[in-house]
Amino acid sequence: MEELSTTVSDLSMSVDNVWVLIATCLVMFMQAGFALVEVGFTRAKNAANILMKNLMDFAVGSLAFWAIGYSIMFGEDIAGFMGQITLFFGPDEIDGLPQITKLMFQTVFAATAATIVSGAMAERTRFSAYLIYSLVITLVIYPISGHWTWGGGWLSEMGFIDFAGSTVVHSVGGWAALMGAALLGPRVGKYANGKPRAIPGHNLVLGALGVFILWLGWFGFNPGSQLAAAGKDNAIAIAHIFATTNLAAAAGALASMIISWMRYKRPSLSITLNGALAGLVGITAGCAAVSLGSAAIIGAIAGVVLVFSLEFIERTLKIDDPVGAISVHGVCGALGTLLVGVFATEGGLLNGGGFAQLGVQAVGVFSTMGWVIGTSFILFFVIKKTIGLRESKRVEEEGLDVYEHGETVYNMV
Amino acid sequence: MEELSTTVSDLSMSVDNVWVLIATCLVMFMQAGFALVEVGFTRAKNAANILMKNLMDFAVGSLAFWAIGYSIMFGEDIAGFMGQITLFFGPDEIDGLPQITKLMFQTVFAATAATIVSGAMAERTRFSAYLIYSLVITLVIYPISGHWTWGGGWLSEMGFIDFAGSTVVHSVGGWAALMGAALLGPRVGKYANGKPRAIPGHNLVLGALGVFILWLGWFGFNPGSQLAAAGKDNAIAIAHIFATTNLAAAAGALASMIISWMRYKRPSLSITLNGALAGLVGITAGCAAVSLGSAAIIGAIAGVVLVFSLEFIERTLKIDDPVGAISVHGVCGALGTLLVGVFATEGGLLNGGGFAQLGVQAVGVFSTMGWVIGTSFILFFVIKKTIGLRESKRVEEEGLDVYEHGETVYNMV
Amino acid sequence: MEELSTTVSDLSMSVDNVWVLIATCLVMFMQAGFALVEVGFTRAKNAANILMKNLMDFAVGSLAFWAIGYSIMFGEDIAGFMGQITLFFGPDEIDGLPQITKLMFQTVFAATAATIVSGAMAERTRFSAYLIYSLVITLVIYPISGHWTWGGGWLSEMGFIDFAGSTVVHSVGGWAALMGAALLGPRVGKYANGKPRAIPGHNLVLGALGVFILWLGWFGFNPGSQLAAAGKDNAIAIAHIFATTNLAAAAGALASMIISWMRYKRPSLSITLNGALAGLVGITAGCAAVSLGSAAIIGAIAGVVLVFSLEFIERTLKIDDPVGAISVHGVCGALGTLLVGVFATEGGLLNGGGFAQLGVQAVGVFSTMGWVIGTSFILFFVIKKTIGLRESKRVEEEGLDVYEHGETVYNMV
Repeated sequence: MEELSTTVSDLSMSVDNVWVLIATCLVMFMQAGFALVEVGFTRAKNAANILMKNLMDFAVGSLAFWAIGYSIMFGEDIAGFMGQITLFFGPDEIDGLPQITKLMFQTVFAATAATIVSGAMAERTRFSAYLIYSLVITLVIYPISGHWTWGGGWLSEMGFIDFAGSTVVHSVGGWAALMGAALLGPRVGKYANGKPRAIPGHNLVLGALGVFILWLGWFGFNPGSQLAAAGKDNAIAIAHIFATTNLAAAAGALASMIISWMRYKRPSLSITLNGALAGLVGITAGCAAVSLGSAAIIGAIAGVVLVFSLEFIERTLKIDDPVGAISVHGVCGALGTLLVGVFATEGGLLNGGGFAQLGVQAVGVFSTMGWVIGTSFILFFVIKKTIGLRESKRVEEEGLDVYEHGETVYNMV
Repeated sequence: MEELSTTVSDLSMSVDNVWVLIATCLVMFMQAGFALVEVGFTRAKNAANILMKNLMDFAVGSLAFWAIGYSIMFGEDIAGFMGQITLFFGPDEIDGLPQITKLMFQTVFAATAATIVSGAMAERTRFSAYLIYSLVITLVIYPISGHWTWGGGWLSEMGFIDFAGSTVVHSVGGWAALMGAALLGPRVGKYANGKPRAIPGHNLVLGALGVFILWLGWFGFNPGSQLAAAGKDNAIAIAHIFATTNLAAAAGALASMIISWMRYKRPSLSITLNGALAGLVGITAGCAAVSLGSAAIIGAIAGVVLVFSLEFIERTLKIDDPVGAISVHGVCGALGTLLVGVFATEGGLLNGGGFAQLGVQAVGVFSTMGWVIGTSFILFFVIKKTIGLRESKRVEEEGLDVYEHGETVYNMV
Repeated sequence: MEELSTTVSDLSMSVDNVWVLIATCLVMFMQAGFALVEVGFTRAKNAANILMKNLMDFAVGSLAFWAIGYSIMFGEDIAGFMGQITLFFGPDEIDGLPQITKLMFQTVFAATAATIVSGAMAERTRFSAYLIYSLVITLVIYPISGHWTWGGGWLSEMGFIDFAGSTVVHSVGGWAALMGAALLGPRVGKYANGKPRAIPGHNLVLGALGVFILWLGWFGFNPGSQLAAAGKDNAIAIAHIFATTNLAAAAGALASMIISWMRYKRPSLSITLNGALAGLVGITAGCAAVSLGSAAIIGAIAGVVLVFSLEFIERTLKIDDPVGAISVHGVCGALGTLLVGVFATEGGLLNGGGFAQLGVQAVGVFSTMGWVIGTSFILFFVIKKTIGLRESKRVEEEGLDVYEHGETVYNMV
């Protein structure tokens, strides 16, 4: 009897483990999605560079997060700020789940934060500078603020809710993208007399395929973050999260399509694609805490805000973000995290919870934002003043692929 | 002991739930497959439009099926015809599976039926007309005939077998595609003096990738339709369905390649790709009811019939279906459903079951066909007479992308 | 109580079954990855041919392995050499797992071995010759050496370790690729005065997407080869294998990038992509037998060796392998298998195990190599002398697509 009970308990853990490993696969595949979105929304002459960046931030990130990053994020808490460092984490032990399963799931999350930045800095960043950035964000910047919320740090103590990482992952990537793009300056030819000029992407089929892959991957990102699947509560929870995720994406796409139709007279594919992503980023914090209806509303809000944010960053701030990463991940990540305070079934403003949760959400959003803006400013500034952040004008005009990688992606021999 | 028994029972449900959610992911990814097939088999100038249609029918479909469609299909039976409507379905409860898991699995199926139509109507349909069609099929047409077979309606009472939807999903899409393409008329330049002219697709690599993705997705579509994975019977069933699905696809591809080789002197890639899909559609009704050998035969039959159906529709009916959706989903969906009556291990004509099951299959196939042809005729006719179904000749010739969406997909700046 | 115990035991099997079926999906999707890598690394004029080969080796392979191959590999052992043939394997029974689940998992592995060869023989092989090759490797060559190691044959008796198939799958494909490419001779224009000329691939975005898909698929390939997921030991094992797989891929990509940077002055995308694959192939044999740290080292070694192997085969052997399949799958497959004897936690040279395991590994590697080189030489030689292995010069120069398939993949009407 006791033996059987142990078997059942192990089996329950095994179901959780299978679930989380499959979710890890889905999130890992998002790397391909991000790569395709970035390649598709930019020009053919820089495609090899973009693919290399996306490939290497996953490769370098996997090694770096294993070597140090994971323990900084999830090691024993030091003063609420960071975890105790353990080099090359990975004991073959079980703590709820196999420790290595947790390592892998968190590795693909860390790689997501890193890769978001690539898009905003596309078409003008030195490859070696990008590699250094990628290493530092995975080793230090992401794990430390991640520790605050998910590793037992001070934000988790406050009751900050960010279920799957609207803030912890997406806005971290988004704010680092903001600083990177700001310090780089716009691409050659992006602004003429202070007015932005459209630089259309070279292949929106790739961009759209990327978005479909990301949408798919999000079913690992959000429902996987439950970190369990066994038992009634978990079964209901992951189904619920699956649905909130999908409805928010759908509503985000629909809302941004409508807004683009109204503002620009035509339903824009590129905006609608980003609208789906905005909905997905927006629901990531609250996917487990809000109703299906609220999820659709959050997605729609994110889809609407996205369009105005894209305009604001391009026209008012005059920051050149080729793929819209700052708006999608930074702005909609922050927005979605705040909206948990509004829509949460328990404690949300609209559900009689008052302003308490909303206040905590704001603290989480802005402290993480401050941390990332500060550290990534230092990082990019140091790179700029040492090895250099930006390509020469000539390399940029002729394309990074030939100069940086000695290869072109398209060859019609 | 009793507690342990409850735990085990919950665990069993959890395994089912994980299985169905993963199957949902696979089926959702088929949206990308359909989009790529349609984009690849058509011209570059309409690619943005096609991607928008595929993105929006999933977005609109997800919202519409949740809001109303699901309950029409699965709500409490009203006179065998439709289910009782419940707005915004999604209680966090378990009924065999979490209710929301069922909602999500059925949502991606509904979206499949909707998206099939897009291909046949490609390159000449007004975008707003398509959105309305997409809404109506997901809200009304698909759920009602779906209720007949899967929701406890009159066809299920008769013993009609359509395990994963050769008829319920694929032929519904296929017959709506037939009506849409017929009412639209052929693309400009498709027929000269009554003879069809080939309008080759602009990128068959995308088409082939789409077919690989669809083949993969079908491992969610068919084995997922078992809606369970726990216990010996379910384990054997999903493995069996996995194999019948794969063998039918393989045989469909092989058979259509051979036929194309014989008829056109060369093994055609585009026909072989559609042959794989024909095999998959063909086995979808009977995947759980026939042996592996019968599955291969059904797939081969579908692959052969496909080639002749493509010719018949293009040359005799003179209906212009750019991707072959009517043949693949309509004809092979109906064919596969009928063949269950021939090959079913229990009750099939060849296994001593007589004509009874075959008769029931015919009733299911033709009643669903009649329903869809009737309702979609009305739908497209009303659209045609009000806002208009078809683009102007000039827009069609210059490409829908620029006029409808203000964007081109390929930009070589 | 006993009944409950049976339920739990069935449930445990069901979890294993779900795991292996999902792994099967991931490995099946690798077919798309291989197709994209091969298409991307070659020229547009042969893309239809390449897609047809990749589609048909999966279709033909699925049918052939079911009909005969599986039983040769896993049937009752005959003298350690091959299994007893059972036609059309597939009883609906459970033996640890549902028999059909095993059939499907092994089918996608067999198809992987077959498809590897396609890349090395690209752009100059007759399509009918390829179909015959594909049939024979799946029916005979692969299953027999596979039986030696995985089917209870003589290598398994010796204690040869090849957990997921560095040798059984990858090097079998790689050595057949070597013989095929050698007997074909180089493509027209590949060598001028004995010096190799680069023939760049036409679309490295497709190649990169293919590598991302392959990387993803390997999470089915390796962790799926545990063939179980239930219980503590299995849970820990699949997590461990997941991590060794990922770290080896990451280290392989990083190492080959660094070497390409040093040797060719620039970090090459095409080499780095192959470096990731080299790491994956290299870890496949030992993924369950080595530590995470050793996995990273094995991946890095494979990434370094890859670069030199590519040069050696192209410049010294003067064998034209358009995608590098011989180096990636043959050389790194053999290398990774040998390195198990060095790094294995139990029995490895560096862990105090002496040379015994390393010796056994060498026997496995070279006997399999000998078998494949011998049989595939005969196969390709017979094809060459009968129906002909190679296209005419004119067909090769103008592209196989038009002549073999009557279709071009890209059409810009």
